Amino acid sequence: MSWTLTQLAGLLGAEVGESPDFVVARPVPADSDDPQGLTFCESAKYLRLVTAHSAGAVIVPPGMEISRPHLVADHPRAAFETLLAMYRRPLPLRPGVHPTAVIDPSAEVERTASVGPYAVVERGARIAAGVKVFPYCYVGEDCTVGENTVLYPHVVLYQDVRVGSRCVVHAHAVLGADGFGFRWDSRVQQKIEQVGAVVIGDDVEIGAGSAVDRATAGATTLGNGVKLDNMVQIGHNARIGDHTVICGQSAVAGSAVVGGRVTMAGQTGVADHVELADGVSLAARAMTAKDLKQPGVYYGSPARPLAEGLRIAARLPHLHERIEKLERRE
Amino acid sequence: MSWTLTQLAGLLGAEVGESPDFVVARPVPADSDDPQGLTFCESAKYLRLVTAHSAGAVIVPPGMEISRPHLVADHPRAAFETLLAMYRRPLPLRPGVHPTAVIDPSAEVERTASVGPYAVVERGARIAAGVKVFPYCYVGEDCTVGENTVLYPHVVLYQDVRVGSRCVVHAHAVLGADGFGFRWDSRVQQKIEQVGAVVIGDDVEIGAGSAVDRATAGATTLGNGVKLDNMVQIGHNARIGDHTVICGQSAVAGSAVVGGRVTMAGQTGVADHVELADGVSLAARAMTAKDLKQPGVYYGSPARPLAEGLRIAARLPHLHERIEKLERRE
Amino acid sequence: MSWTLTQLAGLLGAEVGESPDFVVARPVPADSDDPQGLTFCESAKYLRLVTAHSAGAVIVPPGMEISRPHLVADHPRAAFETLLAMYRRPLPLRPGVHPTAVIDPSAEVERTASVGPYAVVERGARIAAGVKVFPYCYVGEDCTVGENTVLYPHVVLYQDVRVGSRCVVHAHAVLGADGFGFRWDSRVQQKIEQVGAVVIGDDVEIGAGSAVDRATAGATTLGNGVKLDNMVQIGHNARIGDHTVICGQSAVAGSAVVGGRVTMAGQTGVADHVELADGVSLAARAMTAKDLKQPGVYYGSPARPLAEGLRIAARLPHLHERIEKLERRE
Repeated sequence: MSWTLTQLAGLLGAEVGESPDFVVARPVPADSDDPQGLTFCESAKYLRLVTAHSAGAVIVPPGMEISRPHLVADHPRAAFETLLAMYRRPLPLRPGVHPTAVIDPSAEVERTASVGPYAVVERGARIAAGVKVFPYCYVGEDCTVGENTVLYPHVVLYQDVRVGSRCVVHAHAVLGADGFGFRWDSRVQQKIEQVGAVVIGDDVEIGAGSAVDRATAGATTLGNGVKLDNMVQIGHNARIGDHTVICGQSAVAGSAVVGGRVTMAGQTGVADHVELADGVSLAARAMTAKDLKQPGVYYGSPARPLAEGLRIAARLPHLHERIEKLERRE
Repeated sequence: MSWTLTQLAGLLGAEVGESPDFVVARPVPADSDDPQGLTFCESAKYLRLVTAHSAGAVIVPPGMEISRPHLVADHPRAAFETLLAMYRRPLPLRPGVHPTAVIDPSAEVERTASVGPYAVVERGARIAAGVKVFPYCYVGEDCTVGENTVLYPHVVLYQDVRVGSRCVVHAHAVLGADGFGFRWDSRVQQKIEQVGAVVIGDDVEIGAGSAVDRATAGATTLGNGVKLDNMVQIGHNARIGDHTVICGQSAVAGSAVVGGRVTMAGQTGVADHVELADGVSLAARAMTAKDLKQPGVYYGSPARPLAEGLRIAARLPHLHERIEKLERRE
Repeated sequence: MSWTLTQLAGLLGAEVGESPDFVVARPVPADSDDPQGLTFCESAKYLRLVTAHSAGAVIVPPGMEISRPHLVADHPRAAFETLLAMYRRPLPLRPGVHPTAVIDPSAEVERTASVGPYAVVERGARIAAGVKVFPYCYVGEDCTVGENTVLYPHVVLYQDVRVGSRCVVHAHAVLGADGFGFRWDSRVQQKIEQVGAVVIGDDVEIGAGSAVDRATAGATTLGNGVKLDNMVQIGHNARIGDHTVICGQSAVAGSAVVGGRVTMAGQTGVADHVELADGVSLAARAMTAKDLKQPGVYYGSPARPLAEGLRIAARLPHLHERIEKLERRE
């Protein structure tokens, strides 16, 4: 997969800035020293990084000077992302159903779906056209997997889990495990049975080791275009709005309602029954046990509007000295 | 699985309030619009939710007015929980040992246990009567699984792990991985071998993706009736008391001793060697590196008694203004 | 595996203090009551623990009085660690390739490697001499596993993952899942394809359920001797220096650069693109969104130098009363 800059210019909608016959073998990050690598540069900061290293070629915006083989593109990052897509190799999976897969006779697997070694598809499950089920996936009773969705190795769907079309579910994600419900009866923790479903929209991506619990009754739902990073926990009966993005090690507790286009940065948390309006952003580590009804960025634990949260955090270290000074006044 | 309200009244110990022949198909949450759903209502707040939506029927307490098909029960929530239990469908698993399971000749599997496709049961392991071992479970050397315990798909028991009776271990839980012990010898991190066990009591539930590490020596123990949510980490040699409940993404570090009937809410933490008395509750996100010797609720990081912790948090945003006012006094 | 104290003295480089014929069956922790257990004692605190319990025998330092069968060693802990290593039993795995393993014809598996039941080794993968691949491991396309490395059950290597020699990767770890990259195009979250690699050094240990994401381009790298505990998340293009230790439920976000010999305690976090100098330590729960350029211990969120962080935390509860007193002055 090597290309000359001239070839790439055509493919990426860019112009050749220098060395049209220079051969590029792969995309690389800005701090790479790969002589055959192509990276990109969109600001003075990136330029410093690139010039401090020795990637073979660079995509730069119009007007940026660089004495190295390069392409010129209006949007270097977008051109680079196009390059990335060219280098994507889907994980290998043979078409059809592998002979070791255990498919219940009542399950339906579309002819164009691929089911890998050692997968288990339980009774009543339905696998749509173009789906890829990688090894060791467990598609449980009455689950549905929509068209062209990919289940990477070791994904578990318990029961009554509906996954939409064009979703990507990464290794070890668990959809439909029991919600966490117990009631102390003064002797033991009585289990509250969890008999609801999980409903995942279209174009959803779920990270490695993440879990979406089944509802107590009704459904835990992820809207269309939701993106979950690794090790994200979504509690029973939670609802996540369309196009919301939740970064690693974050949690949405039971019955919480997270709006659309919400961003939850890493290690954030939303307590049970809390509501987040559309467009809310939680900064890294923010946590809220209260509804956040206005869009905007929130910071800290308990989460406050960003400017206020930052101000409080910035002043905190100085409060003692200021009080001390006042105490000394007299 | 449909019932008339009259039938359900008998099954749930309730009385028919209206429309005795109304047919219910499933339990639903209070905010459901399912015309065949039955929900419950136990307070004015729930009543508002229910009346704003259109679930077909409702369980209400005596004296609550509602113009919709309904049942009257002294404890609507308890009646609803009984309904939930009626709708539970165990994940399918054929009785007996699946032909693809790899069972070491020295392992003992009781005749009434079920072992699913692709399970591995190692030498010296013992699977008691009525146990369900779902696909891809790895029951390691000299592990014991007690009567009627369920291991959902992909559970891993390393070695010397003893799980009690009537436990539920959810998908991808790992019991008995090495405790995290290394010693810097001024050249490398030397591994401290972890050769202890994991001992899990009866009626324990362990969530998806949770991990209980084996002890360095001796045993990491979970008492009877302990409930762990998803992605909970229990370090080597920790001890968790009976009926303690630990919510998602929480951690108990090595050699910590958590008492009985403790509640750890989501994303909480207990540092290594710390002791928590019986009846301690950690509010969401609380973390303690110190012993908590009195029962009660603790808040924040470092965790403080709830009232104090809340007071400090509530005052924090105003300290600056108050100091500023004092500074301006002169 | 039982030994007399005389035998153990020879094996552990210790001297017999009392009862040379006393028989020890296993290492135990200091608070054990196992009459055949051997524990160790290195301080007055441990001595209190040991004497309050009844482990059969103890390793003590020279000069420590104890009226129980014991050994005397200059470094009791080190002697105990040697004892632990004697009791280590590797998980069983038959030599050679199990007949149920699915190995692509183009993959190379060295003759002395062991591949367990139901493992999948994809095209172009290379498994070096002495490697142990436990059941259900998925070694993806073009992955390389170095000599004598152990992949415990259910480990997933996606594609282009290089693991060094003598590494230990625990159950359910995922190496090489897609980095978390999306770009809002004002309509949907566009996926930024992740086509880079993961490169793991030698002597690395990765805990149960941890994840190291593949780079967008280039490689996410873990240096030699790095130790990750359970449920640790390493984002795309992050770089972790040699001999760094990261405890449970911690995260290093994308493109962060963590130096060598860094310690990240439990539930810590490093934001994306942040740099940590060699020798930095994050105390439990610390989180930083800024570079930490000086070695030393940091505390809190945002992380501050330990003494300062502790001081601020200790003063915080008293600020209100001090201000109140000042307010009353007039």
